[in-house]
Amino acid sequence: MKNKLGKQTLVFRNKPVITGECAVVGTREGSGPMKEYFDVILDDDTYGEKTWEKAESMMLKNAILTAIRKAGLEKSNIDVMLTGDLLNQLMSSSFTARDVSIPFIGLYGACSTMTQSMLMASVFVDGGFAEHAVCGASSHYCTAERQFRMPLEHGNQRPPSAQWTATASGAAVISRQPCTANNILIPAPKEIFVTYATIGKIIDTGMKDANQMGAAMAPAAVDTILNHFEDTGMTPADYDVILTGDLGYIGKEIALDLFADAGIDSAKLGVRYDDCGTMLYYREKEDVHGGGSGCGCSASIYTGYLFRKMRAGEFKRALIVSTGAMLSTISPFQGESIPGIAHAVTLETS
Amino acid sequence: MKNKLGKQTLVFRNKPVITGECAVVGTREGSGPMKEYFDVILDDDTYGEKTWEKAESMMLKNAILTAIRKAGLEKSNIDVMLTGDLLNQLMSSSFTARDVSIPFIGLYGACSTMTQSMLMASVFVDGGFAEHAVCGASSHYCTAERQFRMPLEHGNQRPPSAQWTATASGAAVISRQPCTANNILIPAPKEIFVTYATIGKIIDTGMKDANQMGAAMAPAAVDTILNHFEDTGMTPADYDVILTGDLGYIGKEIALDLFADAGIDSAKLGVRYDDCGTMLYYREKEDVHGGGSGCGCSASIYTGYLFRKMRAGEFKRALIVSTGAMLSTISPFQGESIPGIAHAVTLETS
Repeated sequence: MKNKLGKQTLVFRNKPVITGECAVVGTREGSGPMKEYFDVILDDDTYGEKTWEKAESMMLKNAILTAIRKAGLEKSNIDVMLTGDLLNQLMSSSFTARDVSIPFIGLYGACSTMTQSMLMASVFVDGGFAEHAVCGASSHYCTAERQFRMPLEHGNQRPPSAQWTATASGAAVISRQPCTANNILIPAPKEIFVTYATIGKIIDTGMKDANQMGAAMAPAAVDTILNHFEDTGMTPADYDVILTGDLGYIGKEIALDLFADAGIDSAKLGVRYDDCGTMLYYREKEDVHGGGSGCGCSASIYTGYLFRKMRAGEFKRALIVSTGAMLSTISPFQGESIPGIAHAVTLETS
Repeated sequence: MKNKLGKQTLVFRNKPVITGECAVVGTREGSGPMKEYFDVILDDDTYGEKTWEKAESMMLKNAILTAIRKAGLEKSNIDVMLTGDLLNQLMSSSFTARDVSIPFIGLYGACSTMTQSMLMASVFVDGGFAEHAVCGASSHYCTAERQFRMPLEHGNQRPPSAQWTATASGAAVISRQPCTANNILIPAPKEIFVTYATIGKIIDTGMKDANQMGAAMAPAAVDTILNHFEDTGMTPADYDVILTGDLGYIGKEIALDLFADAGIDSAKLGVRYDDCGTMLYYREKEDVHGGGSGCGCSASIYTGYLFRKMRAGEFKRALIVSTGAMLSTISPFQGESIPGIAHAVTLETS
């Protein structure tokens, strides 16, 4: 097949290009190590709305509209919106899609949503089905906590391995051609092209502890990355940066062990590998236990930090690998283990 | 753009073809007017599993594996699986994807999932990103009822406008070329090609009654169909059959009114238009109130009834339009109205 390589990897031969992006984050995320890279930092996590769910929708909507504006486009120029979030029935995405009135495809990939949506948008653009597609993902600590764990008002204790769902949203416009008049405020910004994507399989190693998401997802991240290398013939040395997300502190250590088992030791990975879940918060200063998570975590680090670094010429080729734990709120009660998934996307600058 | 027509419609120029399909339905669905068209009818709705959720996963898995077998393929031949269901965190799809180990993209479109997954699979195949893609959707009365309404054990009364979630699952394999040796047991079956798809926008008319899903979704169905006609230049007369799903009895009447308002009166629609939610059960004999719903309803009617009729040469061109209500279980409590969506897919035989 002309646009497939090996077993799981897609090749984008028409070089879909990221023409606009935006990261909107909460107060805590906006005071962490990544604070200088975000477009919008909320003053408070309700964003002026009456509920956290409405606030999350507003964050995603703002990220999408800002990404479109940065691309120098109007929302009427966008052919399709491909987004997802952690909320049941994609509450944030659905209500955002209603407000922006763009043809809408809803995606669910738990915390893997950002690379899932980027690969789908690239398929649409590369295949000539869209001139401009907008993709994105969002999460909110308060909406996720009360849906997946406990009402915040309980004030219940979380085990040290539990991760902190990021209040964050990221969106990107992927286009068939670079825009001639974008609003990206960087001197002579590089163009970022999407060149490959590797679709993940569900990997489930039998882990049943819903407070050990990093451990449940690390095998999926490593499986997708190894398949990506096998399909493309590339090695870690071909990338300037490899970011998984969101394995957190424990999951990242497990991923490093699994890479070593597969013959990719830390010398080969070098400093180029990191995990978004370990980058969003100050580990010592903040009580986020296992690190960051939620599909907004990797979404905001890619669209905020990574894209800016790439546009400035600091990284030329990046592999981004969002990871999701596809457990449901009732599957653990039915004795099920946690299915993990990860999708990889290759970005290259001009 | 080469593969887009008008504002919302995709054109599949390489003629992706449906090489295998399967419909698995519950006991009640298997004793209705469509009973002769289904591949598998369950003896009881637990399908030998300990929970209804596991039964629903097993139904989707059986539909997918049977569709692959009918295409004369093995699951290792399938490049990507694009499926969804109504359960939180796509429980049925995620656990099915784990068991079949095919690269997986999770979709959420509420009851619009079947046409959403067919259009995405066609984009992959037509764009040269997959040789074979499997798509599908599932729902189960007992899993949906306890997630969206009340535990069944309550035995609570449902208003007459409430629809009955189908216990049903449908899957189809969409391929780049017709398979030379398929297992479709019809004499000289016609090939079914996917030729167009129209991606829906969210349409929300302010309806807030979660027991009036048909009324909430009918405007989205009509909007997508009118856009499809405008984008393609076709009219109802170009189709042998037009099926929406799942508007049910009330929603179908509303859709007919809206069509008439748009200048497409019942004389123009003729007998070619029907709604899957009105086709699955005997209205008089069975107490299904507003008619059938759930993403398995249209999925099983397309893959069971419609595809068989098309393969037998009875219909040459069909427009299928699954409809979804993207409300969440908590959005009505936050004062939100119900966002509707519908995606249309055109099927043509050789």
